[in-house]
Amino acid sequence: MSGTHMQTIEEGSITSAPGFEAAGVTCGLKAAGALDLALIYSPHDCVGAAVFTTNAIKAAPLVYDHRVLLQNPTGLRGVVINSGCANACTGERGLQDAEATALAAATALGVEAHDLMVMSTGVIGMPMPMDKILRGIALAVARRSSSTDAGHAAARAIMTTDTRPKEAALLVSTDDGQFTIAGMAKGAGMIHPNMATMLCLVTSDAKITPDLAQRALDEAIIDSFNMITVDGDTSTNDTVLLMASGLAHVQPIEVPESAGYEGFSQGLGHVLTELAKAVVRDGEGATRFIEITVRGTKTRAEARQVARTVARSVLVKTAIYGGDANWGRIICAVGYSGVAIDPGRIRLWLGDLELVRDGEPYDVSEERATHILAQPEIPVTIDLGLGHARATAWTCDLSHKYVDINAHYRT
Amino acid sequence: MSGTHMQTIEEGSITSAPGFEAAGVTCGLKAAGALDLALIYSPHDCVGAAVFTTNAIKAAPLVYDHRVLLQNPTGLRGVVINSGCANACTGERGLQDAEATALAAATALGVEAHDLMVMSTGVIGMPMPMDKILRGIALAVARRSSSTDAGHAAARAIMTTDTRPKEAALLVSTDDGQFTIAGMAKGAGMIHPNMATMLCLVTSDAKITPDLAQRALDEAIIDSFNMITVDGDTSTNDTVLLMASGLAHVQPIEVPESAGYEGFSQGLGHVLTELAKAVVRDGEGATRFIEITVRGTKTRAEARQVARTVARSVLVKTAIYGGDANWGRIICAVGYSGVAIDPGRIRLWLGDLELVRDGEPYDVSEERATHILAQPEIPVTIDLGLGHARATAWTCDLSHKYVDINAHYRT
Repeated sequence: MSGTHMQTIEEGSITSAPGFEAAGVTCGLKAAGALDLALIYSPHDCVGAAVFTTNAIKAAPLVYDHRVLLQNPTGLRGVVINSGCANACTGERGLQDAEATALAAATALGVEAHDLMVMSTGVIGMPMPMDKILRGIALAVARRSSSTDAGHAAARAIMTTDTRPKEAALLVSTDDGQFTIAGMAKGAGMIHPNMATMLCLVTSDAKITPDLAQRALDEAIIDSFNMITVDGDTSTNDTVLLMASGLAHVQPIEVPESAGYEGFSQGLGHVLTELAKAVVRDGEGATRFIEITVRGTKTRAEARQVARTVARSVLVKTAIYGGDANWGRIICAVGYSGVAIDPGRIRLWLGDLELVRDGEPYDVSEERATHILAQPEIPVTIDLGLGHARATAWTCDLSHKYVDINAHYRT
Repeated sequence: MSGTHMQTIEEGSITSAPGFEAAGVTCGLKAAGALDLALIYSPHDCVGAAVFTTNAIKAAPLVYDHRVLLQNPTGLRGVVINSGCANACTGERGLQDAEATALAAATALGVEAHDLMVMSTGVIGMPMPMDKILRGIALAVARRSSSTDAGHAAARAIMTTDTRPKEAALLVSTDDGQFTIAGMAKGAGMIHPNMATMLCLVTSDAKITPDLAQRALDEAIIDSFNMITVDGDTSTNDTVLLMASGLAHVQPIEVPESAGYEGFSQGLGHVLTELAKAVVRDGEGATRFIEITVRGTKTRAEARQVARTVARSVLVKTAIYGGDANWGRIICAVGYSGVAIDPGRIRLWLGDLELVRDGEPYDVSEERATHILAQPEIPVTIDLGLGHARATAWTCDLSHKYVDINAHYRT
């Protein structure tokens, strides 16, 4: 198990996993000719796994994909993703549109409709402009390629309020062989545990069973996408899909107690964490990236809960935007996190500056605090002094620009 | 029980309840000579009841008051309230300062320290400037008066980011006699169920047992202060105190099945709801008052949960600030509220405009929606179609000014 070695593929994209093809095209869903439809295609059957939003209202593509994965967990060939229209709260028609999207792409690619999945992101409650979608599919099928740039175009085509694409690729070497895990994500607002308005697709040439792929995905999400928050809203469309083709010359991953599974798990965790952090870095209107580490809890679940509560606090986020070392708001959020604490044991650091010890102000140097808060990345560490567990959450500040973006999203 | 009649006392204040005296003075905690210390005093012993923050970190005054109420539930004589310094996260010294505050006021008034309670609001983690506090107490004791204006001054002295005082007074007539309930509150940010950075004091000349006073207070808070949110943060200092002197010529309220208790409960509910709504109307940076009514749930608790979840959504609040009828965000929040729903049964109205029926867009007239959103008060009604329970929550929009206020609160 010590044999796992991970190497980042610089400037990688979703096509960095051997065998996968991609396209990002313009079909007119977004204004001004921006890329708005992506196709990811594998000429070989893939194993699939997915995690969907916890929101009780699930958009049509999620309902469709869930069905496809149950029917066809080892024969997946690709995904069609559009931005601009979420296909959520669209009723029976929405589901028909999701099916028609998959069918159109399948026909053009010469595969079956149930070999393809679909993802959508954008405005809720708007019917899918199917004429544009169908035109986009034809274009994407024609232009698909295994080049890195084709992957970059796909990553751009799934953006909404994102200001930049989010991509990660990793070469994983294990005692059982070597494979690649590549991913792309979109999301900048409506981001909250459990998941976010966030789409993420991961491709790999690893050879793994559907059960273990799902297990690795479930585990990797806990400390990556479930530890980020931008605004506390959990969307109707959040989806993480994983496709593994098995093309790599590697021993099949069939049991969790194997070098291959260990490597796959670690690699997937690494890729998802990179993408999750990229989402927060690009949080709507964000001017600061905030990393909140909570330690000294009895359980890891408690550490996660405290970290996420602080990460969600609008008052903490606005104070950091203002460069104000108002640590009282952080302590206050710890207090209402629902985790049992001993106020007299709390310690709090901003960077390496210990602001609070034993629940009271300690080294409150406003000058040093101001300097730390002027940096683009703000590390906050909270020690509850009750145990040895720890967890980290990521968030961004809440700025005037966040309000700008969200006051007029549709208009 | 049908005999309860309630009459608002126009321009009333905390001294509208016969027998109570008040003062609001300047002691230098706030800049620019603003009122910052209030005293409420009763020459007669009062029954007391209180509800404190659910935050695990409780400020020193809450610890002190809790102790006083246990020791002396029927002999209370008054409250000292300061704004500018919260006396939270101040450790042993904070508790000593709370005690010293009560003792100084008691000495000047010729009563015992445990006859008085204290409340504080302001910045967390700052030690109490006791020299200023003591000076303010001397002034307030000297200037106290039963005039309505003295009550108005007290209501101003407890403000922090509030732009206006919050006061309500009510004459309650029941078959068992007539009494007054008066209240004042402060709070504009860090406002969230359960409670808020919110202080509220209620006075009454009703004659009631401590147990029934506490019961009436616990009940009245559920649908008033626990149904408002400004920013989702629950503070360390939230307190609602009730003092009832028994001076009114009225039958003692000793059992819940009595006209007197019914009238007291109704009246207290009315006063607390008025004050809670006033807090939201004055929400930091608010430009709109939003009333969210949820109906058609199986239980009242479910209706409350959905209403509060929607009220808390930062995306809903920014959309309304922008005058954008982005109903998808409201439906999305309903979906992640944690209450079991049937998406195909949801109906949603903005004012009288039915935007969603059976979970899909219905009468989406952007023009009418824009007109409704241009009003200062926005009614949102959500019907889940699953039962007959209902509840209402109140919130405000999230504006650029909110960010201004909270980015630089301390500085």
